[in-house]
Amino acid sequence: MSIETKLQKMGLVLPEPIKVPAGVKLPFRFVRVHGNRAFISGHGPQNPDGSIAGPFGKVGSDISIEQGYEAAKRTALSILGSLKRELGSLDDITWLRVFGMVNASPDFTSQPQVINGFSDLILELYGPEHGAHARSAVGMAGLPFAMPVEIEAEIQIG
Amino acid sequence: MSIETKLQKMGLVLPEPIKVPAGVKLPFRFVRVHGNRAFISGHGPQNPDGSIAGPFGKVGSDISIEQGYEAAKRTALSILGSLKRELGSLDDITWLRVFGMVNASPDFTSQPQVINGFSDLILELYGPEHGAHARSAVGMAGLPFAMPVEIEAEIQIG
Amino acid sequence: MSIETKLQKMGLVLPEPIKVPAGVKLPFRFVRVHGNRAFISGHGPQNPDGSIAGPFGKVGSDISIEQGYEAAKRTALSILGSLKRELGSLDDITWLRVFGMVNASPDFTSQPQVINGFSDLILELYGPEHGAHARSAVGMAGLPFAMPVEIEAEIQIG
Repeated sequence: MSIETKLQKMGLVLPEPIKVPAGVKLPFRFVRVHGNRAFISGHGPQNPDGSIAGPFGKVGSDISIEQGYEAAKRTALSILGSLKRELGSLDDITWLRVFGMVNASPDFTSQPQVINGFSDLILELYGPEHGAHARSAVGMAGLPFAMPVEIEAEIQIG
Repeated sequence: MSIETKLQKMGLVLPEPIKVPAGVKLPFRFVRVHGNRAFISGHGPQNPDGSIAGPFGKVGSDISIEQGYEAAKRTALSILGSLKRELGSLDDITWLRVFGMVNASPDFTSQPQVINGFSDLILELYGPEHGAHARSAVGMAGLPFAMPVEIEAEIQIG
Repeated sequence: MSIETKLQKMGLVLPEPIKVPAGVKLPFRFVRVHGNRAFISGHGPQNPDGSIAGPFGKVGSDISIEQGYEAAKRTALSILGSLKRELGSLDDITWLRVFGMVNASPDFTSQPQVINGFSDLILELYGPEHGAHARSAVGMAGLPFAMPVEIEAEIQIG
């Protein structure tokens, strides 16, 4: 079963290309492919129409761990949307590195529980072999657009 | 002389696999090997029994630079423990990239002096050729379990 | 036209090797080459003489977005200086990954506008094919020497 079929069966939708807020220029590639390597830029949660999805703010003060988990899951969908547009297919991917950044208050220590929203979905979709990844989950002083989560990654194509 | 023999002569012990605090799920690989590349997840300081090692908190306010240096050295041992379990041997490794994260108060600016605890040990063990690495040493708003240091890395096998 | 000629025409100068403040040891490689891969350590803005360039502090409270943009542009020059010394030529480079760290107050959300100072220069110099890069632009609790910006990167040689 293809990854896209799995997503459909799970009722999950890949968002449209990001709608960048007015006045902001993002002069980089969301996915940078070179040979069979692909570097994935920092992505955040998006609504299906491509707009940046709330809730906004810091996990641990403004929003809950559960909301952060959902934001990380949405960030996975955002990345899969970029990969679909760049690669054409989501099927020939081996996950390697995931860097999970949580917009967090200084006393917040549950970053892993937040970024699990990303890892759980990727592992459910890709399985324990192709979906396995090294990971860090850490607290940032701030993130663009007050997003609660931003994730960058590296994958191998094929 | 093997890396493990060097560690023994230095009186250093590799910790047991991490004992994750109750209720926390870490669904990723501590070392993700793909071909001759290995991505090392964010590790922190451990006690020899695998538990997360204190002191906890922010370098610059809760704990000193010297304690942070020791935490970074312990983090190197934690990573070497994961590499030993994953690769079987510590000997055929070329270090490439080290990303050193310090749980730090906003006015703390001595991150390099903290992460030197990692770099100094790796260079002593692996020498200036195989042990050489690119590095960043930066201040985080927070880290999981209130660890003072977390380090991720990439190596080449062989 | 070579990258160095382009820099000259733009009136831009690559800084001398970094003059590290007294008492600080930086035991890593500013560029770690392995095969045709090169990992670039976290760099910050430098003056032409190699000293770390001000203004210092946090973007969003101590210094402006425009000053942050200039610091990111200077950081690009700092990295190009390191690459020139390590590789001999700046011409056979393909950019892959850029990790842009902004020393920022907790309420700052314009990290992309700051790191654009780096991306805009790299794209102007290298063009949309070799200069294209994946990127994250995120807020840090603190950076060494109170630098406002630190950037690490990965490139392919050739």
